[in-house]
Amino acid sequence: MSIFDAPGDGGEPSSQVAFAGNSLDRRSEHRDDDCLEQALALPGARVFAIGDGRVFLRKSGDGFEALHGIDDVQQFDPDMDNAVLLGFAPGEAPRIAAHVRLDPEQLPDSVKAIDNRSIYIQGLVRGDELGQMAQAASLVSWARSHAHCGVCGGVTRPTAGGYRRVCTNCGKLHFPRTDPVVIMLAVDTQNERCLLGRSPHFPPGMYSCLAGFLEPGETIEDAVRRETLEESGIRIGRVRYHASQPWPMPHTLMIGCYGEAVSTDIKIDEREIEDCRWFNRAEAEALLSRQTGTDDLNSPPPGAIAHHLIRDWLKLAAS
Amino acid sequence: MSIFDAPGDGGEPSSQVAFAGNSLDRRSEHRDDDCLEQALALPGARVFAIGDGRVFLRKSGDGFEALHGIDDVQQFDPDMDNAVLLGFAPGEAPRIAAHVRLDPEQLPDSVKAIDNRSIYIQGLVRGDELGQMAQAASLVSWARSHAHCGVCGGVTRPTAGGYRRVCTNCGKLHFPRTDPVVIMLAVDTQNERCLLGRSPHFPPGMYSCLAGFLEPGETIEDAVRRETLEESGIRIGRVRYHASQPWPMPHTLMIGCYGEAVSTDIKIDEREIEDCRWFNRAEAEALLSRQTGTDDLNSPPPGAIAHHLIRDWLKLAAS
Repeated sequence: MSIFDAPGDGGEPSSQVAFAGNSLDRRSEHRDDDCLEQALALPGARVFAIGDGRVFLRKSGDGFEALHGIDDVQQFDPDMDNAVLLGFAPGEAPRIAAHVRLDPEQLPDSVKAIDNRSIYIQGLVRGDELGQMAQAASLVSWARSHAHCGVCGGVTRPTAGGYRRVCTNCGKLHFPRTDPVVIMLAVDTQNERCLLGRSPHFPPGMYSCLAGFLEPGETIEDAVRRETLEESGIRIGRVRYHASQPWPMPHTLMIGCYGEAVSTDIKIDEREIEDCRWFNRAEAEALLSRQTGTDDLNSPPPGAIAHHLIRDWLKLAAS
Repeated sequence: MSIFDAPGDGGEPSSQVAFAGNSLDRRSEHRDDDCLEQALALPGARVFAIGDGRVFLRKSGDGFEALHGIDDVQQFDPDMDNAVLLGFAPGEAPRIAAHVRLDPEQLPDSVKAIDNRSIYIQGLVRGDELGQMAQAASLVSWARSHAHCGVCGGVTRPTAGGYRRVCTNCGKLHFPRTDPVVIMLAVDTQNERCLLGRSPHFPPGMYSCLAGFLEPGETIEDAVRRETLEESGIRIGRVRYHASQPWPMPHTLMIGCYGEAVSTDIKIDEREIEDCRWFNRAEAEALLSRQTGTDDLNSPPPGAIAHHLIRDWLKLAAS
């Protein structure tokens, strides 16, 4: 068996979640001081326009279009001084992210400002472009939350196509931030039941995997065990990584794992979750088949890594 | 085969690297506003003293001791206002991290200020305590680089035992930062050779795995493919996660993976690395057996995740 084979191998799990599949050529080693300026001058340059966490989408036929031409984006009052060069689509076509300042109330009917989560759940932007949009939203959010230097409070200015910010007072260099979150499906030792919980802010009836931020000084596996124990009282032994997902709310990396539960008695932390329970395979199958928004118990939408963790476990357990 | 079995399973790889195995009870859901104050009053409270990236170690017999009593630490001029409650050792024994301002030149002979990297390479602090020290160093570094608010430049103050910082001007809440880095061993399709490179800042003769920061909007697997391609010109197909490692320089999560090389011709990016080459199994074995500091080619030290990636590949390939 090759080191790269996995049980029940059906392709790379990380390539099958929403926001994955961003194929831009980032050229991360070649972000010179003038790379953004040069990119803006190329005829294929297109801009993602993001205002306070909402993406400005143009109506196009029955659907939406997330990319705007350099001239078109001007109507949204973009902050081009703090724009970020994301990378290049085929044909030397730069993709750029910019914060826009126009009040969404003043948008023409042909443009809608929609939050990332709704765009992904409703499938308004698809595939590769959804991944680019995640990159854009994460970087715009990061740039805006690093307008000042954390060390001295000085004003920062962008460099390296917006991928770095340097303090104009003390010179400290700031890099984009990505927050690792562990999200895990605990499975009992008989491989018959999985553990799902619900947070008070979930839509009605939705149950999902437990999750939490990885903390400084932790391995991924230790974070899985700590978060599961803290939230549910369940002890986890072995941990297996399954898939990862970029999550642009605001700039997170979801790290999806399976955890082998070595205890069964649930004791929830009511500060974190409002319920947690074991689902057998049939119950988990039923959960996946139901859409959010019904009265019944339901699961996260198909693009969510939690959905994939449950679905892929059911496939593996049945094989 | 269970979902939790891995080929050549010899226990959890992440538990075998340096800085792992931190068993403090973090009680992350119970960090109230006065938890640090309460912890400092407990008789078992001990402090990690960290000044500008160097840890103050007390000589103790033939070795060193990293923890100081509350009274003892005063001689180092600790900034207790910005201290962080890491968690609890058995027996309700709080572990605390504090930045200390005493010039290391003025330390008594019984105390040495030593950087994290030297502590780990020389094995001056061991096992569980080394992991706690990594957590301490990461959080002190984070707190100091977030003394001001990135949004408005205002002064921040700690809350939740130092695990949050809140802006006294705009109220923005700041959370600890952990930077995910992918570090990968590319292996050829015959499973006979692995790809190692050297950065100009490595010790003489040292070759190691390629590595780089995961960027916003990337999966772990995409980051492995991008970084390998950018640095070495080698294309990677399948990726398999192997292990993770907390890396307190300053607050990084190393994510160790194997990558299946689908091309063989190396073309290095000279901005990043000064050499990169294929090593067959015998050459990789020889590399691991040599200590850094000799004239021969050598590998990262045994605690490094890169060392484990090479060693575990050799074991798997031989099995």
